[in-house]
Amino acid sequence: MQQRLPVELEKSYRLLNHGPTVLVSSAHGTRHNVMAAAWSMPLDFSPPKVTVVIDRNTLTRELVEGSGEFVLNIPTREQARATLAVGSKSGRDGDKFAELGLIAIPGEKVGAPLVGGCIGWLECRVISEPHVQRRYDLFIGEIVAAWADARAFANGHWVFQEGGPRSIHYVAGGNFFETGEAFEVKGDA
Amino acid sequence: MQQRLPVELEKSYRLLNHGPTVLVSSAHGTRHNVMAAAWSMPLDFSPPKVTVVIDRNTLTRELVEGSGEFVLNIPTREQARATLAVGSKSGRDGDKFAELGLIAIPGEKVGAPLVGGCIGWLECRVISEPHVQRRYDLFIGEIVAAWADARAFANGHWVFQEGGPRSIHYVAGGNFFETGEAFEVKGDA
Repeated sequence: MQQRLPVELEKSYRLLNHGPTVLVSSAHGTRHNVMAAAWSMPLDFSPPKVTVVIDRNTLTRELVEGSGEFVLNIPTREQARATLAVGSKSGRDGDKFAELGLIAIPGEKVGAPLVGGCIGWLECRVISEPHVQRRYDLFIGEIVAAWADARAFANGHWVFQEGGPRSIHYVAGGNFFETGEAFEVKGDA
Repeated sequence: MQQRLPVELEKSYRLLNHGPTVLVSSAHGTRHNVMAAAWSMPLDFSPPKVTVVIDRNTLTRELVEGSGEFVLNIPTREQARATLAVGSKSGRDGDKFAELGLIAIPGEKVGAPLVGGCIGWLECRVISEPHVQRRYDLFIGEIVAAWADARAFANGHWVFQEGGPRSIHYVAGGNFFETGEAFEVKGDA
């Protein structure tokens, strides 16, 4: 059983700072959906904000614009096949949660679901910026709640263990990198 | 001697797709500078675009706004100390290239220098978006030339070798991850 713990909002950017690929989950009315996004990043510390690119042709775009909410979920190497699949199928052709056996966990602050089995979750409310949404498919969100898997993130830091779950980084054509070795550099270089 | 080869513009997003930490180099008039940024990402394939957060209090901000150009450089683990240093010192207190022994290589399409020893370089021209620049410190750039170290990127893909140079991902407080193991997932999951 996965132990999901809250992450302080002021440290929530750390879930995303190393540039992992994310799943974007959304819901509006009776529909929900999930897609993959390699193009997301933190935008501010306090209040914490993120940006993510959501193509205008996706169902996710429709649900995010309808609800003003989304969740960024950080998947693991075990979920790489599902990550590729949700990035290539459209939710208009069927419920991707059901098709791929993904668990939708209710969010605390937003209606969009958290994707089970991920190791980090950022619940976000859209900060409306119609010009960049229209021109660049770029969405800005304020993080209103954040969670992490206790096996992978503790005391405000990723603590990936050998053989334990860790995040992934998409390149192209089904090619990914795992997040690699952690190392520390002392200041005053 | 480093062998720097051009990267096709339509594949240049792949240098950044896995979310590495970058160095942002800039020049205007007689001044040049370099800072670190964990917050950058691709924004479009064609024409290729990127976004990067450049704090309003930095010298880099002044030079990028003055020149309308910047370069995103992808540093290696060997450059992690320098990455931390250029992210904590201000160019207003002295020339960071000189202080840290960084080599400034002339760009092809922009006046901003490329940082020697990095493994990828994206020469960018700012697409002026005053509202998001002012409100979020968010800059959008079009990639006008791209380069990679032949030891690390070939035929449009990263080809990190055991013991060879590879990219890094900043977390916080001097903590980084290396880019880890590559793996491939087949479609139709």
